[in-house]
Amino acid sequence: MHLHLRDGEMLKLAAPHSAADFAGAVVMPNLVPPVNSAETMAAYRSRIADAAGTFAKDFSPLMTVFLQKQSYEELENLKTAPGFFAMKLYPAGATTNSDGGVRDFGEAEETLRAMEELGIPLLVHGESNGFVMDRETEFLPVYRNLAIRFPKLKICMEHISTAAALPLLGEFENLFATVTLHHLLYTLDDLAGGLLNPHFFCKPIVKRPEDRAALREAVFGGNAKIMFGSDSAPHPVSKKECAGAFGGIYSAPVLLPALAELFEKNNALGMLNDFLGGNARRIYDLPKATKKIVLEKKTQRVPEIYCGADTETRVVPMLAGKEIAWSVSER
Amino acid sequence: MHLHLRDGEMLKLAAPHSAADFAGAVVMPNLVPPVNSAETMAAYRSRIADAAGTFAKDFSPLMTVFLQKQSYEELENLKTAPGFFAMKLYPAGATTNSDGGVRDFGEAEETLRAMEELGIPLLVHGESNGFVMDRETEFLPVYRNLAIRFPKLKICMEHISTAAALPLLGEFENLFATVTLHHLLYTLDDLAGGLLNPHFFCKPIVKRPEDRAALREAVFGGNAKIMFGSDSAPHPVSKKECAGAFGGIYSAPVLLPALAELFEKNNALGMLNDFLGGNARRIYDLPKATKKIVLEKKTQRVPEIYCGADTETRVVPMLAGKEIAWSVSER
Repeated sequence: MHLHLRDGEMLKLAAPHSAADFAGAVVMPNLVPPVNSAETMAAYRSRIADAAGTFAKDFSPLMTVFLQKQSYEELENLKTAPGFFAMKLYPAGATTNSDGGVRDFGEAEETLRAMEELGIPLLVHGESNGFVMDRETEFLPVYRNLAIRFPKLKICMEHISTAAALPLLGEFENLFATVTLHHLLYTLDDLAGGLLNPHFFCKPIVKRPEDRAALREAVFGGNAKIMFGSDSAPHPVSKKECAGAFGGIYSAPVLLPALAELFEKNNALGMLNDFLGGNARRIYDLPKATKKIVLEKKTQRVPEIYCGADTETRVVPMLAGKEIAWSVSER
Repeated sequence: MHLHLRDGEMLKLAAPHSAADFAGAVVMPNLVPPVNSAETMAAYRSRIADAAGTFAKDFSPLMTVFLQKQSYEELENLKTAPGFFAMKLYPAGATTNSDGGVRDFGEAEETLRAMEELGIPLLVHGESNGFVMDRETEFLPVYRNLAIRFPKLKICMEHISTAAALPLLGEFENLFATVTLHHLLYTLDDLAGGLLNPHFFCKPIVKRPEDRAALREAVFGGNAKIMFGSDSAPHPVSKKECAGAFGGIYSAPVLLPALAELFEKNNALGMLNDFLGGNARRIYDLPKATKKIVLEKKTQRVPEIYCGADTETRVVPMLAGKEIAWSVSER
């Protein structure tokens, strides 16, 4: 329910990884320039289908549009556009290519009101511009405020990473959340506790052990308001292993096996299907997927790197070179 | 009062930078293998003098020895060795090349008792092996315990980075501290708040804004138990801009001008001399330095990189490519 596919050669590398293992994905719009209209969305959707190749027929990209100050008419038009799913709100500067995002929530008032009326979900990258470990917590009053002011708007707190975000799910009927695999697996110790490993660098930053524990408890406990959103976000290795590395973890190729391993270790395999799709289907009234994926307990080794068609498109995946106890055996 | 000069080609690059601007420096012993005896110390001291070249005559390396389980006799011998200053205690695994450090403080009991009797200072890298942001705070009870059990031992909390460490200075007469320039300047936001910049990665990790504020207040307020210790720690750029980057900030070439700039901005220039040397001289009964350095308010641009005699010895300094409002005008 939260995926970055990028564009160009990177899209060609990334799209098949997601399209092979998933029936669909909510595709984020933070390209340069952003996907911010029905036209740019349709064009991107078509590039995704091309890039997914043979997997395209069994893969539905649920398209999102970068929330700026779209009018009621624009939103009405979007609503009927093939593949459109939701609007994505980025506070300006919060993550990769978010500079065109919202600077002041007042300016988005009319757009949000129209979305509420039209039944268009709001997906939010919820971080303030404060101290990096506090950004999500500082943003929670904004979620609270949105949930109260737009009671019929479905609002998703994307990639929540803190214990502090969880109580809001119980408080507001119209608030939901996605959680990534990496926030269930890692903390700041993995990024910077020993040597500094830029492949664990992402936005929101991996947090404290208590935060990870709280997310695990909620997810393995089967909280029906929490959906899996990988936030898989490839960057070339040249933009990761450098001074000034981009945030983003490329998890797409390992998601299903790594989730199976993690859920099995926590005696929660029974919760995996709902986390992966069931909850989202109920929350957003999505059609039931017909695609069938079989996972079996068979060890595999993750490649050290994935290479695209040009020298720049080389991506180090999550768990590069590591073994995972599960594999996809049937697609 | 806290400097890493390394060895080999890196020592040749680094030693002149420190020896040019400073009358002396407490030199850390975490080489591979560590400086852990009178012999290895004497040999290292001689390599430092060679590397410092023409600056060597005005530069006193205050040598430290890696605390393991040295006997009373070894310490007695060290005490009279030319240039010997103190013992350095690393908890095993806490930082670069600290694997041979202390695993259990019980095993250092006799060595610490002997040091107390002989009047040898104890310098401590005070971090637990817990969550990276909590390591210093978790270590504070160890400082407290050491200060109580060895009341005549001068104990220095090296490179303190948290507000929580400061109250201990008021509580125990025999506890002192060093503070780095980078912990006065930076927080985790500089390392990982925007893009990930490995040149801000160090141990202890840069902390929260409140921690930096508390350190600034103590230092600019003229706390006489706090000494400047740069912890300047060069690593080749190939070991910084990579996956698995080493911790360490190479501040030596910019220390005096950058300190002058920071202290001036905070109306604390009058405190700079005591922070740089006066406090340490009184705490450790060191001779007054005769070396004179003149700083003037003249803008300079810091080099992007310093290159040594082989291709591996290329180091990105702190503030690389940036302007500093002060310069050393006379040495």
